[in-house]
Amino acid sequence: MKRELVRGAGGIISLASALFCLQCASAPPAPDPQSARAAILRADEDFARLAQSKGVAEAFATYAAEDATILPAGANPVEGREAIRAFFAGASGLVLTWKPFFAQVAASGDLGYTLGTYESRSTGDDGKPVTRHGKYCTIWKKQPDGSWKYIVDLGNPSPAPK
Amino acid sequence: MKRELVRGAGGIISLASALFCLQCASAPPAPDPQSARAAILRADEDFARLAQSKGVAEAFATYAAEDATILPAGANPVEGREAIRAFFAGASGLVLTWKPFFAQVAASGDLGYTLGTYESRSTGDDGKPVTRHGKYCTIWKKQPDGSWKYIVDLGNPSPAPK
Repeated sequence: MKRELVRGAGGIISLASALFCLQCASAPPAPDPQSARAAILRADEDFARLAQSKGVAEAFATYAAEDATILPAGANPVEGREAIRAFFAGASGLVLTWKPFFAQVAASGDLGYTLGTYESRSTGDDGKPVTRHGKYCTIWKKQPDGSWKYIVDLGNPSPAPK
Repeated sequence: MKRELVRGAGGIISLASALFCLQCASAPPAPDPQSARAAILRADEDFARLAQSKGVAEAFATYAAEDATILPAGANPVEGREAIRAFFAGASGLVLTWKPFFAQVAASGDLGYTLGTYESRSTGDDGKPVTRHGKYCTIWKKQPDGSWKYIVDLGNPSPAPK
């Protein structure tokens, strides 16, 4: 009887384990905020590199989530990837460089933000080159394919660095 | 023997349930992104009301997380609740009104952001009143006491509404 009981109990423990594991399998993978934080810093740096190699319109379209919103200084919000591409395509001659200095993510590892500083070079109304400095915040959302895209981006001017 | 087996199995199932429940008890409460989204919209509206009744310095200090950063247009980032209070205390005569138009939160319900529009009234260098319009992004973090405080706040000018 003892042997039967143990064997029976073993079967039940296996069933409980199986049910527990099924529950684990249906849950999303455990979030890892540290690696997500590193991932959005890397995404922001890759984004900045693409702006150098392909220009701002291509870079801002590539890294935009489908429903991204940008809040450009001096203009109204621009919503959606293609509208964002068109907005930057209209800013001919604009060269943007930037670098994040901070990142933080939610416990679930699906939403985070980077803060950084930028430098913009463009042509002034008088035809002369103009360099401006500023800071920005980019909010990132993990996409269904595991990549990170921004959902919000905005910045504003800072005094020129000393 | 059957009766013994069932009784034995019942004890094991109870133990498994108890262990499972202990695990549940030690986990944080299930996140609820919908109620978190409503909570940050409400926090942003309460924040705006406090700015009307107590002024911007008191409101921005009250709603700042201890390690909050603001990115003011035309100035360098300001970090920490007391530095933020001092920054706005130096902007005497500034009246800010705002209203969020969008909010989103992470799946974990601990981090989210609001987007909104603001109007600022201040006194120009010529002594005359100046009204400016803009938009903003505020990033909110749930605090250990369950309240929501902002950790990042920034905005920039928009054209005057038509």
